[in-house]
Amino acid sequence: MDIPKSHPRYESLLKREKIVEALDKGILAKPGLIAHGRGETFDYLIGEKTTDIALESIKAASALLVLAGNPVISVNGNTVALAKEEVVELAKELNGKIEVNLFYRTKEREEKIKKEFEKEIENGEIKLLGVDDANKQIPNLDSLRGNVSEEGIYTADVVLVPLEDGDRTEALVKMGKKVISIDLNPLSRTARKSTITIVDELTRCLPLLIKYVREYKNKSRDELENILNNYNNKENLKRMLNYIGDRLKSLEID
Amino acid sequence: MDIPKSHPRYESLLKREKIVEALDKGILAKPGLIAHGRGETFDYLIGEKTTDIALESIKAASALLVLAGNPVISVNGNTVALAKEEVVELAKELNGKIEVNLFYRTKEREEKIKKEFEKEIENGEIKLLGVDDANKQIPNLDSLRGNVSEEGIYTADVVLVPLEDGDRTEALVKMGKKVISIDLNPLSRTARKSTITIVDELTRCLPLLIKYVREYKNKSRDELENILNNYNNKENLKRMLNYIGDRLKSLEID
Repeated sequence: MDIPKSHPRYESLLKREKIVEALDKGILAKPGLIAHGRGETFDYLIGEKTTDIALESIKAASALLVLAGNPVISVNGNTVALAKEEVVELAKELNGKIEVNLFYRTKEREEKIKKEFEKEIENGEIKLLGVDDANKQIPNLDSLRGNVSEEGIYTADVVLVPLEDGDRTEALVKMGKKVISIDLNPLSRTARKSTITIVDELTRCLPLLIKYVREYKNKSRDELENILNNYNNKENLKRMLNYIGDRLKSLEID
Repeated sequence: MDIPKSHPRYESLLKREKIVEALDKGILAKPGLIAHGRGETFDYLIGEKTTDIALESIKAASALLVLAGNPVISVNGNTVALAKEEVVELAKELNGKIEVNLFYRTKEREEKIKKEFEKEIENGEIKLLGVDDANKQIPNLDSLRGNVSEEGIYTADVVLVPLEDGDRTEALVKMGKKVISIDLNPLSRTARKSTITIVDELTRCLPLLIKYVREYKNKSRDELENILNNYNNKENLKRMLNYIGDRLKSLEID
């Protein structure tokens, strides 16, 4: 389908096309389409823009990523479908580590996702983990979903999980890791269990994360720790619920 | 996947499975999965139960259906996937007319949907329109999406459209028809343009529609008109927005 750029829902329709394409390419499992729809509604309710509330969590997440000794970005089918370039860009600002971590894990999908990163792996820009080396196990998760790379998530101190499920988020936190999630649903278990939750759309917040990570590299450890100490995730989520609630109540039915 | 009945999200997961199955069977187009996800979020926000606000619109819709001279139930892939039995049950209480009306119309999908109703067509319980007889055109819509049956939507006075798109709803209203929509998004164009909008989940509100249609057949025309006159759709939608807004603001982040 050809979507004219002038269409009021151009961005949203374009993302929808990317998601359908990813299903056709075998990168995405079918329930990934339903998950995308759930996110669409939340984005619509927050007004399809990055709120000041989300910006605060983006800044805290950036500080945490810069302070991290061994950060890893976890990716699934939806993330690769929507934001592969941005994920690579962010990884390059960190240690280059990206780990494939699928809810519906099949060898075929893993390989297809790996292929998407072929150029960047060859260039040495990133290190793609979790496909050929997922031989460690997250405790308290069934084997397929708990398989992780020793060099990646298993030994990471900070894990960035865009679009993650609640079980895995909780299991990672229980392992003592700091988890940054990107989740449009402020009520999800992922959102509630994460160390820092960014309630924003993936392709909109990743460029901001990249920008602040770059900027914060020039800050002292004290300054960064100060940003983190002033951040309260539960309060941030509560403010987001209030924001959406107030917004809904103020909308007119024409 | 085997979902245990005790799972807190059993109903929701079961519907998700039905939707994926319908894609596999060729009844549903891929964007239908994304649309299902959008609905899931709204249902989650209204608390996954029929609100008193929705019950009012169900009652008004039931009155309108009983008063109708030539009502038609329009069905698409999502509706057939989730609620075929309920749609048949409701049609049997009316004049039996069900019309297939697809956003992404292909002959193949039409035929597959028709096949789902094979038994009921043979029994004479329902009349399935819009597949072999979609030779009339709704004004102001492109040809594929505007194709309708003369005996069905084209001459209907009341059209029930579960999960319809905004363009078509608006075009039907412009033709002078009364449109009852079932739409979990109180902000959608469908919701705003319909004569009566039921903001509720399909499989939850159809049994209620059936119940009230049965009951209202015993009411006088005056009583039914009174129910309709006391119903205000814009006000109902506004109350729904307030309800969701208040609910979000009252939720605790644990």
